[in-house]
Amino acid sequence: MPHLVILYTPNLEAGADMTALCRALADTMLAARDETGKPVFPPGGTRVLAYPAAHYAVADGARDYAFVYLNLRMAAGRSAASKKDAGDALMEVAKRHFAALLAERFISITLQIDEAPGQVYDAKHGNIHPLFNTP
Amino acid sequence: MPHLVILYTPNLEAGADMTALCRALADTMLAARDETGKPVFPPGGTRVLAYPAAHYAVADGARDYAFVYLNLRMAAGRSAASKKDAGDALMEVAKRHFAALLAERFISITLQIDEAPGQVYDAKHGNIHPLFNTP
Amino acid sequence: MPHLVILYTPNLEAGADMTALCRALADTMLAARDETGKPVFPPGGTRVLAYPAAHYAVADGARDYAFVYLNLRMAAGRSAASKKDAGDALMEVAKRHFAALLAERFISITLQIDEAPGQVYDAKHGNIHPLFNTP
Repeated sequence: MPHLVILYTPNLEAGADMTALCRALADTMLAARDETGKPVFPPGGTRVLAYPAAHYAVADGARDYAFVYLNLRMAAGRSAASKKDAGDALMEVAKRHFAALLAERFISITLQIDEAPGQVYDAKHGNIHPLFNTP
Repeated sequence: MPHLVILYTPNLEAGADMTALCRALADTMLAARDETGKPVFPPGGTRVLAYPAAHYAVADGARDYAFVYLNLRMAAGRSAASKKDAGDALMEVAKRHFAALLAERFISITLQIDEAPGQVYDAKHGNIHPLFNTP
Repeated sequence: MPHLVILYTPNLEAGADMTALCRALADTMLAARDETGKPVFPPGGTRVLAYPAAHYAVADGARDYAFVYLNLRMAAGRSAASKKDAGDALMEVAKRHFAALLAERFISITLQIDEAPGQVYDAKHGNIHPLFNTP
């Protein structure tokens, strides 16, 4: 936690640099600060994963529509303001990233943040977090 | 919102036309009406995305089992009847689509609808919705 | 239900045998027993699906970080002990599976279990469950 998963229609694969979008979104998460100036997301726990669909249908299928769904899952407990600010900042990155494409084709972008819904078990293991724990 | 994500075992890729299934499910969503005759889902917001797994294991692995998981995420607020009717109609489409395969191999199909669980942020951007807003 | 979905960075594809991990996790689910000795998960309903991302960003991107996210979705109703035991057993399998890789590269593993959050519709269809219903 937190991780942002992007599901999108494969008709965007050629025109949108999704690796660059992943990096820009991760950088935005890393830069997010709450009201007290503390990072909203832990650097070692920030991940963005993007998946083009193998098959899809959008709306009535009459045009070559594209769809990008961004879903950020994070633990509960952050302030309302830091959640709104983080969401707004991430959406702004997505808007900028797709601005040129939006001028020439049909795209819908949706960003939603979920606070670990229905979660009844949580465990972590690894060696990345300690790299970012400054003494 | 709403979007339907299909996760499935790749052993179905050759025999099941998943693009056709996506289209049939989207058409079913577009046709859904509530008790007052209004569309249950907005045409410009209807998307179906399908993803074959790269790796998988089903049950005891003793046979060539297949699995199809359909998950529809939508905003809260629809009537109980329209949710049930939409779920039933989508499942009926899936049953019909896999009927021939079900007669010759082992398949499990699960369809679940979630109302935006744990959602704390929601933003949209794009140029598809306006295409379907009739004056 | 239940199904376990694994999302992971593609830089693990060469070094980690993800098909073997899927099988080991499914076997662990099949072996899980509650306080009364009954199976925690139905054999015919146990599925594991793994998806490498097409694009990704992890932490600050300064090193070749890897990430594995395991999410088990199941119906509500199991005992707290059987949920914890199942989570611990699955995490133990993941730790063992990645132990050699963890000694030589940077990996984060997160396992979370959700109880069907926000679910408002649930339907099943297929011919696998009956194979495991002993009289």
